[in-house]
Amino acid sequence: MARRPGRPRANAEQATGRGTAQDLLDAAAALFCTVGYTSTSTYAIAERAGVRQASMYHHFAGKHAILHELLLGTVRPSLRNAELLARIDAGVPARLWALAAADVELLCAPRDNLGALYFLPELSDERFAPFRALHLALRAGYADLVGQYPGVRGEDVGELSSLAIGLVESVILRRREEPDLRADDVAPRVADAVQRLLGATPAGLAAVRAEGLALRATLPDLGVARFPQNRAARPEN
Amino acid sequence: MARRPGRPRANAEQATGRGTAQDLLDAAAALFCTVGYTSTSTYAIAERAGVRQASMYHHFAGKHAILHELLLGTVRPSLRNAELLARIDAGVPARLWALAAADVELLCAPRDNLGALYFLPELSDERFAPFRALHLALRAGYADLVGQYPGVRGEDVGELSSLAIGLVESVILRRREEPDLRADDVAPRVADAVQRLLGATPAGLAAVRAEGLALRATLPDLGVARFPQNRAARPEN
Repeated sequence: MARRPGRPRANAEQATGRGTAQDLLDAAAALFCTVGYTSTSTYAIAERAGVRQASMYHHFAGKHAILHELLLGTVRPSLRNAELLARIDAGVPARLWALAAADVELLCAPRDNLGALYFLPELSDERFAPFRALHLALRAGYADLVGQYPGVRGEDVGELSSLAIGLVESVILRRREEPDLRADDVAPRVADAVQRLLGATPAGLAAVRAEGLALRATLPDLGVARFPQNRAARPEN
Repeated sequence: MARRPGRPRANAEQATGRGTAQDLLDAAAALFCTVGYTSTSTYAIAERAGVRQASMYHHFAGKHAILHELLLGTVRPSLRNAELLARIDAGVPARLWALAAADVELLCAPRDNLGALYFLPELSDERFAPFRALHLALRAGYADLVGQYPGVRGEDVGELSSLAIGLVESVILRRREEPDLRADDVAPRVADAVQRLLGATPAGLAAVRAEGLALRATLPDLGVARFPQNRAARPEN
């Protein structure tokens, strides 16, 4: 495969129509998930994005800032969904179904398996504290719904919400072993599994799923719009 | 913290009483999980283990071989458990309970969170194919029990066994956010969760748990023996 040289761009917005910052994020995501975070240089990111290194520093303070932005993108939309669903007049099980389904879609949607970056040892660095705080806030959003779920006892809320998030985020490892995993196929199955975990009966689950699907349709498609899966390769222009 | 120089060892078996190979594995585990795999040199591993680099190559072909051995250690004992449980005369739910509980213990037992290494991009390399094959064999072991589970339909076996393993391996991410997670506390809870996922009722689950705990006690403690948790720091001898 020929290497494309880094090249200055008179009009950055023309390259993919998505903007320089997004092109840098896409390039970094691909490199972090294949070559690895440590082995990826800022030069390699800029080159792959077709951006000069100097332009890159106009958008990001460094490689860590690009990683941080990628990580935030895997949580922010779900946190927003949790906030929206907390205000909606609907049953708790259906709201939890919609939250879990949309969260799985977000983790499955990007071409690169960004959730794998959660396991980098670098994330214990203070610079990634905002991401860790956002992830804990998402856990709290799950715990809020689990705590109101019919039949769940107060002392089990922490454990059950950890297990519910565990089911959702298990798609990160599945994407490694099942590369053909489809978001629209796996998301409702995982959302169903969360309900069974919390004690839903088969009869009750069918009704929750129908209501949850309807709620899911009212949520913004933040993740999938931002990270189109299997999009056409960027033209070599 | 003072750096300890790499030093030759006249009698390698005396250092920790666990042998040079195990000392190298321990040192590499600590470095891979804190500094990162890419950033860890074979020199750093040898130095931390108190072994000469030349001695290291007597035990391992290189850094990749040490990573591979660490990965195999996170799967082999569970695969052996699956084989033992397949031959035991006991109910399917209890056998699955014991398999899941022991598997969670194995993932929680090592001082370092070795499961986080599953997400390294390097694992797609051909040299790690034996580990990937062993992990698929463990999935097959779960699928075998899930397929015999009362009430599970044939077409759901693949999905439900993926979700069951997902619950078990979700402890890898939990160990990052809940550093005080205790194996003996979380293992039975996750094993219970797998049963609920497969449709166990609260009444049925209590009996399965009792039988599962008894079965668990008959399994070899391979993982925990190999990776003692919170063991005393190695003496500076």
